Amino acid sequence: MQVYKYPPREQWAELLARPVFDSTQLFETVQLVLDDVKKNGDKAVRTYTAKFDKVTLESFEVTKEEMAEAETLVSRQLKQAIEMARRNIWKFHVEQQQDLPEIQTSPGVLCWQKAVAIEKVGLYVPGGTAPLFSTVLMLGIPASIAECKEIILCTPPNAEGKVHPAVLYAAKIAGVHRIFKIGGTQAIAAMAYGTETVPKVYKIFGPGNQYVTAAKQLVSLRDVAIDMPAGPSEVEVLADNTANPAYVAADMLSQAEHGVDSQAILITVDEDLVEKVQEQIELQLEQLPRKEIATNALTHSKIIVVKTLEEAVEMTNEYAPEHLIISTHYHNGVAANISNAGSVFLGNYSPESAGDYASGTNHTLPTNGYAKAYSGVNLDSFVRKITFQQLSKEGLTNLSNAIILMAENEELQAHSNAVKIRIDNEQEERVKAERR
Amino acid sequence: MQVYKYPPREQWAELLARPVFDSTQLFETVQLVLDDVKKNGDKAVRTYTAKFDKVTLESFEVTKEEMAEAETLVSRQLKQAIEMARRNIWKFHVEQQQDLPEIQTSPGVLCWQKAVAIEKVGLYVPGGTAPLFSTVLMLGIPASIAECKEIILCTPPNAEGKVHPAVLYAAKIAGVHRIFKIGGTQAIAAMAYGTETVPKVYKIFGPGNQYVTAAKQLVSLRDVAIDMPAGPSEVEVLADNTANPAYVAADMLSQAEHGVDSQAILITVDEDLVEKVQEQIELQLEQLPRKEIATNALTHSKIIVVKTLEEAVEMTNEYAPEHLIISTHYHNGVAANISNAGSVFLGNYSPESAGDYASGTNHTLPTNGYAKAYSGVNLDSFVRKITFQQLSKEGLTNLSNAIILMAENEELQAHSNAVKIRIDNEQEERVKAERR
Repeated sequence: MQVYKYPPREQWAELLARPVFDSTQLFETVQLVLDDVKKNGDKAVRTYTAKFDKVTLESFEVTKEEMAEAETLVSRQLKQAIEMARRNIWKFHVEQQQDLPEIQTSPGVLCWQKAVAIEKVGLYVPGGTAPLFSTVLMLGIPASIAECKEIILCTPPNAEGKVHPAVLYAAKIAGVHRIFKIGGTQAIAAMAYGTETVPKVYKIFGPGNQYVTAAKQLVSLRDVAIDMPAGPSEVEVLADNTANPAYVAADMLSQAEHGVDSQAILITVDEDLVEKVQEQIELQLEQLPRKEIATNALTHSKIIVVKTLEEAVEMTNEYAPEHLIISTHYHNGVAANISNAGSVFLGNYSPESAGDYASGTNHTLPTNGYAKAYSGVNLDSFVRKITFQQLSKEGLTNLSNAIILMAENEELQAHSNAVKIRIDNEQEERVKAERR
Repeated sequence: MQVYKYPPREQWAELLARPVFDSTQLFETVQLVLDDVKKNGDKAVRTYTAKFDKVTLESFEVTKEEMAEAETLVSRQLKQAIEMARRNIWKFHVEQQQDLPEIQTSPGVLCWQKAVAIEKVGLYVPGGTAPLFSTVLMLGIPASIAECKEIILCTPPNAEGKVHPAVLYAAKIAGVHRIFKIGGTQAIAAMAYGTETVPKVYKIFGPGNQYVTAAKQLVSLRDVAIDMPAGPSEVEVLADNTANPAYVAADMLSQAEHGVDSQAILITVDEDLVEKVQEQIELQLEQLPRKEIATNALTHSKIIVVKTLEEAVEMTNEYAPEHLIISTHYHNGVAANISNAGSVFLGNYSPESAGDYASGTNHTLPTNGYAKAYSGVNLDSFVRKITFQQLSKEGLTNLSNAIILMAENEELQAHSNAVKIRIDNEQEERVKAERR
């Protein structure tokens, strides 16, 4: 842990800089895999699965039998936990549905938006050290609420060609329609272009390693939409003397255990907290199975002491953390001034873990300062808002002079004509009618 | 115009394919300019402005004096037209503000979203053949409604180092804060990285040529968000025998005049309409100042005759047009089945020009089939939804078993600890209290 006390303003940018990995370095390698899958479909997917996942699969799709088997392998307790999480995630996301009113912008001019689900979405859930069934819930549940017609999931097989049963179970209760045992770049390629087995989707969601990130970026340039650019996970704790050092340490460690590139930052106005938190981190670190990863991550983690809460808030908004835990007196007042963050946790009883799993908020959030421009995944991520308009004769007539003048000033005569021809026609018909 | 009658299903994909320009081909060239501006700031911007816009500017920012002058140069009539458009665009977009409720997902677990404006946004408005002041309104007004703190606009200077007065006037009434006379890749670079003069922004909006598109794509890989990937403009008219051939032709031409790569498609269930529309196109084309561009664009435009409205709707959803004009009997019923389109215009009195300028809907829309995954620009484009949560002791206690079990099954012990340490502490304190 690096400790910085009262750093001057001009040091902030450097202090808050993330360890950068430039995924564009991988573009060349990744493009080769993408092109191969685009051209050769399942055959290429099979080759890369053999190469990277060390398993040869005849068929990628998880069968009904595998789903049934998975259900017997997940303990009753874990099923109940997943069900509780599902219910809360569902409750939070279903309320994000929006009533979209019809607006009469001028007499006879009706305009409205309609939220329409993205028809085909692809969810990616990495394999690796831990089975991330919680991510399945976080992506699958809002897709189901949006009523996407085709929700598919790709996740890498293990060496036996299997997927962790909790991932399959979570996919089932989240409403995922089809699951494919495909990982890495080949999974992103399969969903972006479609293969004999895997349907092409319109938007791809989910976390992944640097290859997956690079693949998502590349396919997003031309072929499909993606949820957001990804980077290593982060937490910031903003604390004063009301914070509990043991809780702060636990929260920082829960971030640090994610990966060696994870970042945990403490910004505090209480200098005394520094040592207490460090002691607690050392103490708690000893107990962790993922101690090595966490220790590694902590080397680039920081504790920053600032003078005032105002300064702490300003620094936070400059950093734009993915997760922000506010452990201060009057935390709602502090929260009101937060403008850049992915998800904010208030008070001593709101650890990040709550939002990671079960409180109901989404855990797919903007990292790397992207919170300045991006929202986390939410119901909006799975719908588009199509605009509609219907003008009556009178409505068009009222607007016609403005449209004609603007179009002609933009030197777009045909735009103007499209209005004139309708108005002129109307006038002719009115004249005809009057003559009768 | 190419005419296709009753094409079999397997021909659709080919028929509906867009003329592709792969902007990634320009990446290398564009990257050089981006890097130069990133490194050398205003100096590089000045060099490229001299090179591409043929003008040497000492200072890029539009001054108060230039703004005042512009106001005198725009006619009273055009000002009134712009004001009418502004009012309608404002009315439609202000209603997109959303009440975001606080949700109690379980007892003691409060979760909510807060919409927060993106602090710094950059709008790009191309120069070229026509001064697109309407685009200034379409981007600036929702940014103002969202209350973005810094709204800047870049647009190329003409050979005299000036910007069209209508663009400046529109920027003023749309609420743009600062305007810079910078165009092309150098404008995108300046906004993405900041220079001595131009502030760095978090999200860049607006249309542009292939270089601008490539630049936006490149900076979006690492540095800033962008509104959406861009492509040539498109319109589809979906018609039956109630459509007026003269209106259909006018609408297609208003698209065709945009650029030689614009696409206008007519899908009709009325075979008799084909010839009538073709006649009208020839007739109206003669009158157009941009006849040459339109003629050129029409060479890759298509008229497709299908048997049923159901088929027409299906084909439309496969094409996913940027603009869709529905000129049929019972158009609202047809519209109800449209799932992929940017903006939909209903009936004989809703030409695309209405939405392009003054009805109130946004004209920055997904092209190139991106309507399958993207919305057009709307108020959401300028805000992020930050999630918040606050758990009470009881709230966390209720969720604790589920969180602990899920975290441990994901092999994330520290995530589990962050909950346990709080619950254990609570229990200790309760025991202590009881002893007293």
